[in-house]
Amino acid sequence: MADAPPTEEGWFAVHDFREIDWEQWRNAPERRRDAALDEVTTFLSDAEDIGEGETAIFTVAGHEADILILHLRPTLDEVERLGRAFERTAFGSFTARTNSFVSVTEIGGYTSPEYFEDPEEVDAGLRRYLETKKRPSIPEDGYVTFYPMAKRRDPEYNWFETPMEERAEMMAEHGETGKSYAGTVTQVVTSAFGLDDWEWGVTLFATDAVALKDIVYEMRFDEATAKYGEFGSFFVGRRFPVDDLDAFMAA
Amino acid sequence: MADAPPTEEGWFAVHDFREIDWEQWRNAPERRRDAALDEVTTFLSDAEDIGEGETAIFTVAGHEADILILHLRPTLDEVERLGRAFERTAFGSFTARTNSFVSVTEIGGYTSPEYFEDPEEVDAGLRRYLETKKRPSIPEDGYVTFYPMAKRRDPEYNWFETPMEERAEMMAEHGETGKSYAGTVTQVVTSAFGLDDWEWGVTLFATDAVALKDIVYEMRFDEATAKYGEFGSFFVGRRFPVDDLDAFMAA
Amino acid sequence: MADAPPTEEGWFAVHDFREIDWEQWRNAPERRRDAALDEVTTFLSDAEDIGEGETAIFTVAGHEADILILHLRPTLDEVERLGRAFERTAFGSFTARTNSFVSVTEIGGYTSPEYFEDPEEVDAGLRRYLETKKRPSIPEDGYVTFYPMAKRRDPEYNWFETPMEERAEMMAEHGETGKSYAGTVTQVVTSAFGLDDWEWGVTLFATDAVALKDIVYEMRFDEATAKYGEFGSFFVGRRFPVDDLDAFMAA
Amino acid sequence: MADAPPTEEGWFAVHDFREIDWEQWRNAPERRRDAALDEVTTFLSDAEDIGEGETAIFTVAGHEADILILHLRPTLDEVERLGRAFERTAFGSFTARTNSFVSVTEIGGYTSPEYFEDPEEVDAGLRRYLETKKRPSIPEDGYVTFYPMAKRRDPEYNWFETPMEERAEMMAEHGETGKSYAGTVTQVVTSAFGLDDWEWGVTLFATDAVALKDIVYEMRFDEATAKYGEFGSFFVGRRFPVDDLDAFMAA
Amino acid sequence: MADAPPTEEGWFAVHDFREIDWEQWRNAPERRRDAALDEVTTFLSDAEDIGEGETAIFTVAGHEADILILHLRPTLDEVERLGRAFERTAFGSFTARTNSFVSVTEIGGYTSPEYFEDPEEVDAGLRRYLETKKRPSIPEDGYVTFYPMAKRRDPEYNWFETPMEERAEMMAEHGETGKSYAGTVTQVVTSAFGLDDWEWGVTLFATDAVALKDIVYEMRFDEATAKYGEFGSFFVGRRFPVDDLDAFMAA
Repeated sequence: MADAPPTEEGWFAVHDFREIDWEQWRNAPERRRDAALDEVTTFLSDAEDIGEGETAIFTVAGHEADILILHLRPTLDEVERLGRAFERTAFGSFTARTNSFVSVTEIGGYTSPEYFEDPEEVDAGLRRYLETKKRPSIPEDGYVTFYPMAKRRDPEYNWFETPMEERAEMMAEHGETGKSYAGTVTQVVTSAFGLDDWEWGVTLFATDAVALKDIVYEMRFDEATAKYGEFGSFFVGRRFPVDDLDAFMAA
Repeated sequence: MADAPPTEEGWFAVHDFREIDWEQWRNAPERRRDAALDEVTTFLSDAEDIGEGETAIFTVAGHEADILILHLRPTLDEVERLGRAFERTAFGSFTARTNSFVSVTEIGGYTSPEYFEDPEEVDAGLRRYLETKKRPSIPEDGYVTFYPMAKRRDPEYNWFETPMEERAEMMAEHGETGKSYAGTVTQVVTSAFGLDDWEWGVTLFATDAVALKDIVYEMRFDEATAKYGEFGSFFVGRRFPVDDLDAFMAA
Repeated sequence: MADAPPTEEGWFAVHDFREIDWEQWRNAPERRRDAALDEVTTFLSDAEDIGEGETAIFTVAGHEADILILHLRPTLDEVERLGRAFERTAFGSFTARTNSFVSVTEIGGYTSPEYFEDPEEVDAGLRRYLETKKRPSIPEDGYVTFYPMAKRRDPEYNWFETPMEERAEMMAEHGETGKSYAGTVTQVVTSAFGLDDWEWGVTLFATDAVALKDIVYEMRFDEATAKYGEFGSFFVGRRFPVDDLDAFMAA
Repeated sequence: MADAPPTEEGWFAVHDFREIDWEQWRNAPERRRDAALDEVTTFLSDAEDIGEGETAIFTVAGHEADILILHLRPTLDEVERLGRAFERTAFGSFTARTNSFVSVTEIGGYTSPEYFEDPEEVDAGLRRYLETKKRPSIPEDGYVTFYPMAKRRDPEYNWFETPMEERAEMMAEHGETGKSYAGTVTQVVTSAFGLDDWEWGVTLFATDAVALKDIVYEMRFDEATAKYGEFGSFFVGRRFPVDDLDAFMAA
Repeated sequence: MADAPPTEEGWFAVHDFREIDWEQWRNAPERRRDAALDEVTTFLSDAEDIGEGETAIFTVAGHEADILILHLRPTLDEVERLGRAFERTAFGSFTARTNSFVSVTEIGGYTSPEYFEDPEEVDAGLRRYLETKKRPSIPEDGYVTFYPMAKRRDPEYNWFETPMEERAEMMAEHGETGKSYAGTVTQVVTSAFGLDDWEWGVTLFATDAVALKDIVYEMRFDEATAKYGEFGSFFVGRRFPVDDLDAFMAA
């Protein structure tokens, strides 16, 4: 039996993908649209200003969704409630949920075994870094890519039967690729075991859209990915300020 | 030929996943909504108070469903009828079935071979434990995770061609992982051979949502899972009292 | 090249799965519902009383369908026409087709090679038994399970490259498992090569729903299934008399 | 590198599968239905009588479609235009496209290498036979089966890495099976590389529906199929004269 | 670890597939249709005449879409905005998005390693050729085929574990096949890592529809494809001038 690495969880997350019924929107009376925008803008602003957690809204390119609303909160109840509350705004009735992902942020044992051995001993810098994994902040501006993933369990490529040491080595190599994008791409990894259909979710942020393509391409050659990675759908878009929602809907 | 282990069946189960048409609900006259809530609350309360069996309602996070209604009853007829009866309440017309799972609780031969060899000889404690597998009670409060699963039948990982003894050893290891969550996570395993598209359903209950993630992650490293487990969609949510349905719909 | 075993075909079959639009039904005027029930009950009764062939209606548990209508007839034209005729009744307009399976009953060469070698020589008992495979009668009451299946053609598990003798041995073992359920479970096997997406359909009947689970579970360990069987969706339900359709719709 | 065999293309084909909205049809005023039938019958008759090419209409059994309209024409533009033109008739508005297949007839190099080496040298009989592959005529009456297929490219079963000679041998064996159905089953093979999701489409015609089942079953044991064949959905139905469309819609 | 080849990106692309609601179109008042055509024709003409980038509209054969609108622009924001803007025209409300592909043009390191080693040294001809890969122009007329693809990562066929040199050799062989279609087929390759569900998109242009079939068939035998290529859906159609949209809608 291979060992499960230790983990430490932070905030729960829901990625809420929605398409807009543009025809219904166009046909609605201006008064109703204005009221809907007022209500939902207040709702999202309040959610962004919440004490603990993050909320952000993004455009999404392509036909699978028009917008992504991402909520991060300390409890599953809160993210579940926020998704439902958005759905129930007047604006929500102009949208339909096309996809979602329920997960929880984590510090994985591969990256920082020393933290799990003796958390008191790790220095303040690493501690702050690990803290951002549990309670990440979403960049104010820029592009986003989200995709769910899992590790293979095939006879020749079975991640969960691979000795801990080999997995750690592969994750270290993978981490090196990530580090080469430090300052360019920020990543938030969330775990979805028992919560959603894939094992992890990856959310990448960058101010250069090509960098999102580059990092995903380059990582595809890392052994951890080339041999063991399975991927779901990819979604790409851009964050915008809540106050620009009216401009987005008018564009 | 490998041997099929003995099993003993208990209650039939239907996991009934539904999404709510919030727009239709919002647009319905208050009187109609109140009447619908009265009727369905009575329906569910009566179902919960039934002599033999269990009924419970849960929120579901994410876009695949809003609520899960779980019925456990001595016969397939009863669970089939309860699903249809819910569908036909006025409240049901504000919902659409997005998924379901038809199965039957069982005591599996791997866990307690002595029970199948000589049921009279097993002690009262084990007997009570096995009884809860056939007629489980659903915790009053807390989180739930449901997922369907099957065992692989590939050339190198073929559960159904593996000798009984090896399967029993793997299930024992798997059981050890489960026991380490005793008091934290309760599980109900139901069999769906000949009843639904997967071989088994697993329903987990916990008061700590992270524990649901932890147990599923840790078990992924058990040989029985790492090599032989195939999984369908995962659904996570939380039980709520039937009397809170109006609050849920108003939230 | 492996040999295709001889077969002899009987009736064509269509398994017609439908869901009911309960809301539309509830909202329809009583007069229209009564007329629809009268018409469809007559249609189904007439179909049941047909000279050659069988027609039966079943409830279906779970979200994939509410009812199954099974037609068996000497020609493909007749089963195609019956499906269309049901669709076109007033009752049919309250339903939507969610699935179907087009196939033809057969006597397979594995089970009774002597019949194919010299049909005149087989005794009357076997002849009657084989006759029921071509022109099966549907039990008046009890549960039903339907599932489509195919045989694998993978490098290590390739049914169609396996020598005839080995296939016959596996089918004989498989037949033994079936015989141990004689009197408990009745099975109808239909071939769908060139007619539908899977290779065969299996329809099982039993007065005990657990027996349906048991036989499918036990057979999963037969070599013919463990190594070569691929399965589609499983549907479970119960036959009811055509005259109870009004009670079903009122329940 | 294995060699691509030579091919010679003939007519383009579109298989246009449609379901009928029977409720909408039933509810339409008789005048509108009559006008729709007149228009579409004329459209299809004209299409059938076209100088070069073929058009035919078929019933389809099962839930995936009600009718199939097959167009064969010298150019892709014509088949694309015919599909769109049908869609745009008044009758078309009572139908919805559920599936389609865009492909082109071909003479494959496996069957007649001598033709590709020196077309002048082949005798008139073979020339006429090959001509029917490029410009097939659709039998006036009888059953039809359509299915799309591809050849596997797996490590052990890789058609496109198999030497030309071995492929030719397998295709010859496969052709022998086909020849044993000469006079019973007619086949039209069309290529869909770069045109649709599968590599080839196979359309079989027979006056005996069981023969369609038999040939597909028997061919499953041919090495070319047992090891290399991958199949999509199968559709079965029956051709009917355009003038019977009103009877079909009234039935 | 295998090396990721260098790449250089050009324009972003969105392939926007849409089906037309012909019934809604037919039922709309002529004035509304005329206004919708005027607006969208202006929109598309303006988009075609844009300073940097390309926009083109194509028919699509088969049931998966009626039209394809292809936008190429220097930024992801522009292609995302163009897709949304089309959706929001009055004409857009007669269409529904059935598919899309978000990607970015690239010069791949396999084809021109010398360019990546010393871009200053490559001659003007190669430079112009590479420039067309980053900023391709869409042929005025002719057929188009689009399909998404990925490279396999299976134990025996793992592109991303194959040494750079072997990949380069296979890509060179693949390029030779492409060159034999020079003047007949033009191809645009776009990368979708981190942007969409597949790894690359291939858009082929030709004035002869059979050439599209031929090149895809012949390339299937190239080692890079036979062993490593995985393909999504194929779409085939034909470009038409924006000014012919009214004829297309009237046809």
